[in-house]
Amino acid sequence: MRVARFALPVALLFALDACAQPADRTASGRHAAGTPDAATPPQEIAHGLDHPWALALLPQGGYLVTERVGRLRRIAADGTLSPPLSGLPTVWAQGQGGLLDVELSPDFERSHRIYFSYAEPGPGDTAGTAAASATLGDTAISDVRVIYRQEPKLEGPNHFGSRIAFDGKGHVFISQGERFDRMRAQQLGMLQGKLVRLTLDGSIPSDNPFVGRKGARPEIWSYGHRNVQGLAIDPRNGRLWESEHGPRGGDEINLPQPGKNYGWPIISDGMDYSTDRPYPETIGTHAPGMESPYHVWKKSPGLSGMAFLVGHPESAWNNSLFLGALADGNLIRLTLDSDRIVAEERLLTGLGARIRDVRVGPDASVYVLTDEDNGRLLKLHAPARHQRATP
Amino acid sequence: MRVARFALPVALLFALDACAQPADRTASGRHAAGTPDAATPPQEIAHGLDHPWALALLPQGGYLVTERVGRLRRIAADGTLSPPLSGLPTVWAQGQGGLLDVELSPDFERSHRIYFSYAEPGPGDTAGTAAASATLGDTAISDVRVIYRQEPKLEGPNHFGSRIAFDGKGHVFISQGERFDRMRAQQLGMLQGKLVRLTLDGSIPSDNPFVGRKGARPEIWSYGHRNVQGLAIDPRNGRLWESEHGPRGGDEINLPQPGKNYGWPIISDGMDYSTDRPYPETIGTHAPGMESPYHVWKKSPGLSGMAFLVGHPESAWNNSLFLGALADGNLIRLTLDSDRIVAEERLLTGLGARIRDVRVGPDASVYVLTDEDNGRLLKLHAPARHQRATP
Repeated sequence: MRVARFALPVALLFALDACAQPADRTASGRHAAGTPDAATPPQEIAHGLDHPWALALLPQGGYLVTERVGRLRRIAADGTLSPPLSGLPTVWAQGQGGLLDVELSPDFERSHRIYFSYAEPGPGDTAGTAAASATLGDTAISDVRVIYRQEPKLEGPNHFGSRIAFDGKGHVFISQGERFDRMRAQQLGMLQGKLVRLTLDGSIPSDNPFVGRKGARPEIWSYGHRNVQGLAIDPRNGRLWESEHGPRGGDEINLPQPGKNYGWPIISDGMDYSTDRPYPETIGTHAPGMESPYHVWKKSPGLSGMAFLVGHPESAWNNSLFLGALADGNLIRLTLDSDRIVAEERLLTGLGARIRDVRVGPDASVYVLTDEDNGRLLKLHAPARHQRATP
Repeated sequence: MRVARFALPVALLFALDACAQPADRTASGRHAAGTPDAATPPQEIAHGLDHPWALALLPQGGYLVTERVGRLRRIAADGTLSPPLSGLPTVWAQGQGGLLDVELSPDFERSHRIYFSYAEPGPGDTAGTAAASATLGDTAISDVRVIYRQEPKLEGPNHFGSRIAFDGKGHVFISQGERFDRMRAQQLGMLQGKLVRLTLDGSIPSDNPFVGRKGARPEIWSYGHRNVQGLAIDPRNGRLWESEHGPRGGDEINLPQPGKNYGWPIISDGMDYSTDRPYPETIGTHAPGMESPYHVWKKSPGLSGMAFLVGHPESAWNNSLFLGALADGNLIRLTLDSDRIVAEERLLTGLGARIRDVRVGPDASVYVLTDEDNGRLLKLHAPARHQRATP
């Protein structure tokens, strides 16, 4: 039985406890009945994207999309790709590094500001995750302000994360990886392998958990993370969720609480992909002072972006959490009952392409980006309700 | 004061103790007097080599040279480069990986066999250090036999080592790195970060220290090594020396004893080049059951190949150990009194090129390879004795 150990209100603790069984380590094998994949053929909105990484839906229609190589494009509502927008900072586009997430500012309709994250070059062969805001124009971005950067940076092409999420209370969360330098995730003096929380202009909120602690970075919200490529806030209750691309058999979901240690690499359910053995630093799946995962897949889907679909009682997918699966090449839909994960369904199972990002539109449409040389933007809808009533 | 903790004969222990001061951590700043660099202008034997990695001197004259990109060439005595020899296995030539060391077999004059080490591709993005023997022909090598390979292999472009040394008793030592996956060096079930000892055909000597130990690889001679790019046996006494390209301030010399743990990354004098702080796994410079370095440089020269010059009483450089310095771009000469390091001199200080390998010829000539796009083979001699008598 797997229960989270966060400091939660009593009512929520009860809810978590009650749900533990469906959310356990074998949940990945369970599929919801009655919603066959064939019922929802996806619509291709666009193609010709070079390893697209993240998608933002523009309120007037159309989209913004990042390509890992370092390009930001608009996609018109009819799927036409714009030329790359100018004005981006230098992006370190090697390995898993490049231009990563893009999000609209919470006040986008007034400010036209966007936020994006990327791998930034450092001295020598080093690089690190960074995030910036900018004003979106038709063909360019301008007034770029770097609000966050890993400093010092490290060598290596892997585990930059990264996703951005806003809490609606003036804070931005930025996820990142440990740069495949595993023990960095446990060093409070380093930013790698941490979830950070900043104000929208990049300053440090005074109520961050490590503010004032000697030797710790005040940006940190939570630590012990491996490579967090999914980050979203549940609009129903403001709770922050993250998905973690883990080692073999160690893909996780956590609900990060301030100051908590999520254990990587000291505790993990996963094995090294290269050796099929635990990493040398891993001592087990539980340890004092460390949080075991809220949900873990014994067979790693290869998690990337994620998004909630809530507040749409008309949709058969209401109260779902969607997660892109890179290795499995399909889309995960988790059915939620409050915070409980009560079922898992796989969509787009015939797609055969890595899914890098997933977003939910205001009409409950679900958008996915495929991580391909000829990457695509696809749109899909829930099956109609009456189909479920008469399976 | 730094003394080695090996199990040595009493006389040697005395010798080590007596010498400890000159061999301490500040030795790198000491220079021997009376042998100015200008006295030994180097002779350029060849140029036009693409990042040459290792040199072997052929008994009939001429040389064999490896280029990191995966080529093996002959160099004629007059410096003419041959086309690349055919018959090599596939080499993983990325980052620090490629074709690495080359050595003549101890019975080369009869067998025409050579030994070489290289980065070998594995599944996915993995690679590992390997070593093979082959018969040297005029334009090709043939009958390639892989005698050693890291299995399983790991991701990443760094720390393959590697050097090869023969003990004259039927054994070959192969050095390697920990693939920049630091804690591998402490895992006896993994080969990364180990010095291994095999018979000349690659089988396991029955007196290797971990033969029969459950969970340990029987190839291992010693462990806890970072990136061993220098390996040589002192012809005077058969003792094995290794030089280790360490972190910032942690370049080391060790005299590896069977079964001993040389501590990386748990103990180290060095800092992470990227962050200028200790690595997260490092707890200090000493620990029970681990060997602190025999010699360490507080300012890292960037050690690569090394070679002894002994048995030449006519040479002013008799009883020296030469080490190539990559970062410093010069040649280190350590004066030895038995095993004691009693002085350090820098040669080729005006060269301004990374030195990847150094070898000593039968006439006490010293050869170096420069690690450049247009890499060179240089030859130098000790200053004449009478110059030293009247400084």
